[in-house]
Amino acid sequence: MTGRSQPIEITTFRADLRESAEDRVAIEEPLEIRLGLEVEGERLTRSVSITMRTPGDDEELALGFLFSEGILRSYNDVALIKPCQGDNTLRVELESGVAIDLDRLQRHFYTTSSCGVCGKASLDALSMQGMKPLAARPGQFRRDVILDIPDRLRAAQQTFEETGGLHAAAAFDAQGELVVVREDVGRHNAVDKVVGALLADGHLPATDLGLMVSGRTSFELLQKTLVAGIPLLAAVSAPSSLAVELAREFNVTLIGFLRGDNFNIYAGEDRIA
Amino acid sequence: MTGRSQPIEITTFRADLRESAEDRVAIEEPLEIRLGLEVEGERLTRSVSITMRTPGDDEELALGFLFSEGILRSYNDVALIKPCQGDNTLRVELESGVAIDLDRLQRHFYTTSSCGVCGKASLDALSMQGMKPLAARPGQFRRDVILDIPDRLRAAQQTFEETGGLHAAAAFDAQGELVVVREDVGRHNAVDKVVGALLADGHLPATDLGLMVSGRTSFELLQKTLVAGIPLLAAVSAPSSLAVELAREFNVTLIGFLRGDNFNIYAGEDRIA
Repeated sequence: MTGRSQPIEITTFRADLRESAEDRVAIEEPLEIRLGLEVEGERLTRSVSITMRTPGDDEELALGFLFSEGILRSYNDVALIKPCQGDNTLRVELESGVAIDLDRLQRHFYTTSSCGVCGKASLDALSMQGMKPLAARPGQFRRDVILDIPDRLRAAQQTFEETGGLHAAAAFDAQGELVVVREDVGRHNAVDKVVGALLADGHLPATDLGLMVSGRTSFELLQKTLVAGIPLLAAVSAPSSLAVELAREFNVTLIGFLRGDNFNIYAGEDRIA
Repeated sequence: MTGRSQPIEITTFRADLRESAEDRVAIEEPLEIRLGLEVEGERLTRSVSITMRTPGDDEELALGFLFSEGILRSYNDVALIKPCQGDNTLRVELESGVAIDLDRLQRHFYTTSSCGVCGKASLDALSMQGMKPLAARPGQFRRDVILDIPDRLRAAQQTFEETGGLHAAAAFDAQGELVVVREDVGRHNAVDKVVGALLADGHLPATDLGLMVSGRTSFELLQKTLVAGIPLLAAVSAPSSLAVELAREFNVTLIGFLRGDNFNIYAGEDRIA
């Protein structure tokens, strides 16, 4: 968890007392993801995305992003991931013989969904991929397990404590154990990091896990959850209309306002025992 | 404020009581912004951005986005804004004779900063535009005025009350009067709507105003604030490292953790009396 925040001199007002103080802020830096691939016997490099992220777990971020976007189908497609030109550019080298739809790549080049831009392209992409609703599994998650996740997440989220400025995402199992926890200035990045870690671990589709995120849930977070095959997404705050719509269409259990002893279920309620 | 949330049937858990209930969620839908322009005597249409947004104030959103990105220099450049192909596509028709840097447009086509993607391109863009630090004006805003803004914003933010799911942005003057208040599922959209409203009102650069946002502050929000010439950005939560860096470089007053009687100043503290 080092290197995700940095010290900074600030001025504080506590009531009418003005003081200098030392504080910490979450680090935000751009990461460019480049894809190395072979087209008709020739090696090409394409810049796929530039995202503002908190450094750390960059390889997982790249993996999760490429997988969520449908550019990467399997961890076996990846030959090598390495930094290039410093810490803020990552090169993902595909195995030769791995076919990539260049038109799709082109489209993602300008309408990446890592950030909420491109909902429409993503909606199309989801239909195009022939995505199916997730399998029903009544009572897969117990209510008391769900209620316990926010506390476990807070305990694991070190940088947030320091800065108050980081989102977190965690994959958890039916017993409530946190399998992967990642932090980032962006919710979508935190989720990409979790998905990337699961991909590298051979754990996708993760039909046995739930995903918890800080903040709100939007279309894009639902999309990432669905592509990873995770049947439950829970959040501290509210979902958007499109998140609910997508969850209901594809049978993802969507939980919001998970606080204290309470939560709301917006879709897929039969998975909660 | 109508049309920004919709009713929805949900299941609530209050302690161990499971009930059906009616709730409201913030509406999230894609908006495509198209630019109509004249190149060498020929009318062209270019798709500039697809963003997930809460419907409402779409024209302001488009104006603010295009202005923040440096594509639009003045409200006079705009001949007409009209919906096309339904409610989720907006066409911004430029006056003939208005020159647009097509390379820049091309770049924004794939690296729009409306969402945090493209920080690097934005950094370059800022330098390229020869952006100068904002003028010093010691004591421009009083502490008690700043402390009062969150309450005023909450009072004005109707949909948040209903859904808990919307971000808000408000421009306020030195007396604490809210000049423009806008809501959206995305903080960047809410700010674009405010900037677009100020642009249409002939109020840019808004050197006399401050900007308040719910949530956290990132590089992109700072960029939008700076391009609009607004000398103060205040937020309920934490800034990122890059937000602080940009604020200090361009002399924007950056306030965080504005809650109750307290706040922190991360940059430009001499503007606070």
